[in-house]
Amino acid sequence: MTQWIDVRSDTVTQPTPAMREAMASAVVGDDVYGDDPTVAALEKRAADVLGKDAALFVPSGTFGNQLALFTHCDQGDEVIAGEDSHIVWHEVGAASVIAGVNLRPIPAPRGVLAPNEIRRRIRPEGDIHLPRTRLLCLENAYSSGQVVSVADSAAAWEVAQEAGLKVHLDGARIFNAAAALDVPAREIARFADSVMFCLSKGLAAPVGSMLVGERDFIEIARKKRKLMGGGLRQAGVLAAPGLIAIDEMSQRLAEDHANARLLAQHLSEIRGIEINQDALDINMVWFHLSASISVDALMAGLQARGIKANPPEQGLMRLVTHWQVGKTEVARIADAFEALLAD
Amino acid sequence: MTQWIDVRSDTVTQPTPAMREAMASAVVGDDVYGDDPTVAALEKRAADVLGKDAALFVPSGTFGNQLALFTHCDQGDEVIAGEDSHIVWHEVGAASVIAGVNLRPIPAPRGVLAPNEIRRRIRPEGDIHLPRTRLLCLENAYSSGQVVSVADSAAAWEVAQEAGLKVHLDGARIFNAAAALDVPAREIARFADSVMFCLSKGLAAPVGSMLVGERDFIEIARKKRKLMGGGLRQAGVLAAPGLIAIDEMSQRLAEDHANARLLAQHLSEIRGIEINQDALDINMVWFHLSASISVDALMAGLQARGIKANPPEQGLMRLVTHWQVGKTEVARIADAFEALLAD
Amino acid sequence: MTQWIDVRSDTVTQPTPAMREAMASAVVGDDVYGDDPTVAALEKRAADVLGKDAALFVPSGTFGNQLALFTHCDQGDEVIAGEDSHIVWHEVGAASVIAGVNLRPIPAPRGVLAPNEIRRRIRPEGDIHLPRTRLLCLENAYSSGQVVSVADSAAAWEVAQEAGLKVHLDGARIFNAAAALDVPAREIARFADSVMFCLSKGLAAPVGSMLVGERDFIEIARKKRKLMGGGLRQAGVLAAPGLIAIDEMSQRLAEDHANARLLAQHLSEIRGIEINQDALDINMVWFHLSASISVDALMAGLQARGIKANPPEQGLMRLVTHWQVGKTEVARIADAFEALLAD
Amino acid sequence: MTQWIDVRSDTVTQPTPAMREAMASAVVGDDVYGDDPTVAALEKRAADVLGKDAALFVPSGTFGNQLALFTHCDQGDEVIAGEDSHIVWHEVGAASVIAGVNLRPIPAPRGVLAPNEIRRRIRPEGDIHLPRTRLLCLENAYSSGQVVSVADSAAAWEVAQEAGLKVHLDGARIFNAAAALDVPAREIARFADSVMFCLSKGLAAPVGSMLVGERDFIEIARKKRKLMGGGLRQAGVLAAPGLIAIDEMSQRLAEDHANARLLAQHLSEIRGIEINQDALDINMVWFHLSASISVDALMAGLQARGIKANPPEQGLMRLVTHWQVGKTEVARIADAFEALLAD
Repeated sequence: MTQWIDVRSDTVTQPTPAMREAMASAVVGDDVYGDDPTVAALEKRAADVLGKDAALFVPSGTFGNQLALFTHCDQGDEVIAGEDSHIVWHEVGAASVIAGVNLRPIPAPRGVLAPNEIRRRIRPEGDIHLPRTRLLCLENAYSSGQVVSVADSAAAWEVAQEAGLKVHLDGARIFNAAAALDVPAREIARFADSVMFCLSKGLAAPVGSMLVGERDFIEIARKKRKLMGGGLRQAGVLAAPGLIAIDEMSQRLAEDHANARLLAQHLSEIRGIEINQDALDINMVWFHLSASISVDALMAGLQARGIKANPPEQGLMRLVTHWQVGKTEVARIADAFEALLAD
Repeated sequence: MTQWIDVRSDTVTQPTPAMREAMASAVVGDDVYGDDPTVAALEKRAADVLGKDAALFVPSGTFGNQLALFTHCDQGDEVIAGEDSHIVWHEVGAASVIAGVNLRPIPAPRGVLAPNEIRRRIRPEGDIHLPRTRLLCLENAYSSGQVVSVADSAAAWEVAQEAGLKVHLDGARIFNAAAALDVPAREIARFADSVMFCLSKGLAAPVGSMLVGERDFIEIARKKRKLMGGGLRQAGVLAAPGLIAIDEMSQRLAEDHANARLLAQHLSEIRGIEINQDALDINMVWFHLSASISVDALMAGLQARGIKANPPEQGLMRLVTHWQVGKTEVARIADAFEALLAD
Repeated sequence: MTQWIDVRSDTVTQPTPAMREAMASAVVGDDVYGDDPTVAALEKRAADVLGKDAALFVPSGTFGNQLALFTHCDQGDEVIAGEDSHIVWHEVGAASVIAGVNLRPIPAPRGVLAPNEIRRRIRPEGDIHLPRTRLLCLENAYSSGQVVSVADSAAAWEVAQEAGLKVHLDGARIFNAAAALDVPAREIARFADSVMFCLSKGLAAPVGSMLVGERDFIEIARKKRKLMGGGLRQAGVLAAPGLIAIDEMSQRLAEDHANARLLAQHLSEIRGIEINQDALDINMVWFHLSASISVDALMAGLQARGIKANPPEQGLMRLVTHWQVGKTEVARIADAFEALLAD
Repeated sequence: MTQWIDVRSDTVTQPTPAMREAMASAVVGDDVYGDDPTVAALEKRAADVLGKDAALFVPSGTFGNQLALFTHCDQGDEVIAGEDSHIVWHEVGAASVIAGVNLRPIPAPRGVLAPNEIRRRIRPEGDIHLPRTRLLCLENAYSSGQVVSVADSAAAWEVAQEAGLKVHLDGARIFNAAAALDVPAREIARFADSVMFCLSKGLAAPVGSMLVGERDFIEIARKKRKLMGGGLRQAGVLAAPGLIAIDEMSQRLAEDHANARLLAQHLSEIRGIEINQDALDINMVWFHLSASISVDALMAGLQARGIKANPPEQGLMRLVTHWQVGKTEVARIADAFEALLAD
């Protein structure tokens, strides 16, 4: 079997050999009883890396984000979030079902929630017609593949502090953001009361995400995790690769970013491809296809060359690099596009 | 006791003498048993006037709007609405609590939900990450006091038809909109599957609103009204003034609009007042106060002259005319502002 | 038109002439602004009568009960209630929709929630698998027409105090219970943090119920009432008959109870009728029909004699007395049954 | 390190060596894309074993049960379940939060929901006061460690069919029930529209449960799983041991049951222990401790002898056997109790 080059997303990453070995040999216990030492080690490590008190292992990024809403808010509260953020766009409308909160989506160009845009939507107190604005949700790296600066994060945090809002950071790819900004992840996490980040995606663990925050917050979240069906038993088999994800894989993300830029550079030389140079912060390459090739022909041609990619939507295409896409694979992808668009 | 001039809102309207008489003499029964002939007559009349199959008496406009969301949608569905609409802004976050739906607020200048803005937020089918977009909420007259044209209503309705969305119209002041557009209210209601309108406000009934729509929709809404605690007993005492509201009071709203324009004209001649000429469609006068008078002094001065008004918010002030504010009262209000701003 | 004798329920009561006059002449204002003096007077009167801090006018008994659940509890909390209580049985499943709580129905013979039955269902603290038990719901008079003694109320209250539960009393017919026990209503209300009672039913007001409790509780409930669509405008037109309901009509309920017992005595002499002597506490007469007459024939025969009654369910029939059913009507009803069952 | 004998529950089971090997070598893909062949194989296998169309991997038993409620029901529906069932007792009140349904707990001695008890709680149609009864939840083996016969399952199913209810079976330990009844698991699953069963517990997989049912049901559940945060990525690492759980571990449960009976026999000979002979159907031993030893002394004594057990609650104690508790361990446990209770 030829090895596929899969650039649909970094969610497709296979666990590394070290991760597979770690799963097989993990010391485990019943984590609902608090007995799993590997989970305990992972939770401590995650909290330390992000400079918070405590952490909780959760089955997925969506689970962690929704658990954060459910823990920070009361039913009926209002939550401000970027209009194209994952919580607004890709979590199946869970916010109104589980936490029972109202999302208030606002424009967020490049993922930045500008202070004046936030302030306009914060409800004044004391008016019987208005819900309470309770939470501000940031996302970094943003779903667009763009990274928000530390200064912009701090500015949003400041507005929240003034208004008494809590701040949750959807940091599914916080280590990508950290690598892009060349700061430790905790420098980004400083500007949030809680952070969710994924062990899968670029960090390559097979399953799982972490929710981190203050001790009390995590204790409440632990019980609400059980309510949501996320209390797992011998979860150490997932925590073991998770430790490798944090300790090792987070260190190599700059390489994925460099490969994305390399791929962008190759593609930019092909007629009919226009790279979005403003969205090259992390491991994603976004571009417009103006070439006349049909979507079906493009998909078939890529597949014939061993490349899995998501089809363009209205001419906009995204390719994602990760640990299984190195310089060789980048060259093969560029060659494939060159050949297909030349036809 | 001097008679107050109350221009805070048209929600403050007192029932007319005819309404008081109608309450006292209403033939009533237990409406949960379907026994109240006056309620039945009101529901038939409301449906007829708006050109729909059936109608339901509800305790308030918020109740009617939330009942519409609850009846059209399943938990977790997404509802597109104007960012400054009443449902988004002034219903205490009820949408995520009762119907359990996600509001998707979009820009709506002058209350107009432009087709391209709507289309951008409609979720495609078949993607497991996305909630279902189920409902489009229009509002006419808009909370801003502006009226949406029949053409703009039709255009929004068209987008909904293409996408298989239901349309709910918050027509709290639909008769004001109809008077402003000089069309029958049913010409506006045509472009909605369900409409809520208020018997109180400009129509002066003491309590109550109507939800109208297709027969099946109203039957389901009737049961959900009971769940929400809106099944009343001898509601005929409220339905009797409601009939007068629809039959008589709806005919005189143009007079309120003329009085609002008259008030705007008087005020526009006062230094320190800048009328928002673009928001003079109905019975509301919006203006900016640039005069140096303090809010406290202004409020005290108006009160001393027998005028109740809501204080300006960041310099923006709103006065509302209704059946108890005629030409004499308009003149007194204008005089009061002139005197207070001259100081 | 012959005057019907309507013994289906006391919810069918027509407002008295004094109530009609009070509606027509009520001094009213916009209660959402807190401007309605008649509503304010009613709320003060309701609180005083039940010996509580504060009160709130709500559109219906179901509304008041659900608002109490919504105000006392967080989403996911557990609420203990009698298995045949109105909240469990007749409120359309609202508890899981609005408050988002779990009802825990327990046996309640004669409406009594025995301390050991309550204790068995209270969740211990500290177990991550268990929801919090938050609220105990009592009901007096019970839906069965039976009245719970002060001692039994006190015993249930004691259990709640030990466990830190709040207590809500569905006192839709608390004045009937008080009349039956020959104590002031506040002696029953003492054993509850909040009480809902109806102005309609035996008290004959056309629309409305009251929720009473501590000041803070009522303040939160006031905002949640708005969320649920129960913020009304010139509600004084309903508060005016409500004051008569509390001040005058509550004093005459013993008469209804005497009429119910009289009716029971007459009926007990008819072959084919077996009175439930254990459920004769208030204005309801329950009996089994062993006569061979068909339900249709019985209903037709009663109707022909000007009597509206609900049909028996599995042979069990209920007749309800109220201010429009006096000794003359009682005699006519007894005669009708005698004639119909003799055939 | 001495090896602990852990009889707190079968949730503490460690994965077998074959499972660890299977995790390390699993062929995996991104299951949100439907790309994981091991998950696909597990889902097919689970459906086949239970005689249903389709299956879905979920993170936990609670997740699977709540997903079933969420998929079968609309918000506000009523669900009949045994009073001591896991869904009522041990799922943190999730039913009112996620699915938004009302649980209607009924007595279920030995886990049997008697037809007359079910029928009494099914709501008639057409009454505006009543929620819809939508779902009947069975549980087998019951939380009490007792197994419901095929005949009793069929009888409950019949009632549901008559009334148009769906049936969900919490079969967390369905293979234990099947072993106890000496029938294939599908003979039990026949009497349910959907079944949840656990790969962990006695089957020893580290993480995960299955939800099985009709194809359409599972397709809707797949999307709602995503909403609940249960869409995992390379879940094949958990599916691989899951296949071993179904294929191999389910075959050896009779051995655990025999060991439980052996343990019961040993313990029954000790003064101060009274075995509940009526709850010995599966791998659980329930007994009352009448001995005078304190809970603390008992726990300390067991721990000193390398035995982990949950403390008795009000004198009632439960020990659970599983693949890591063989005859040798049974003997050591019995010896420990004998020594401790002799003191």
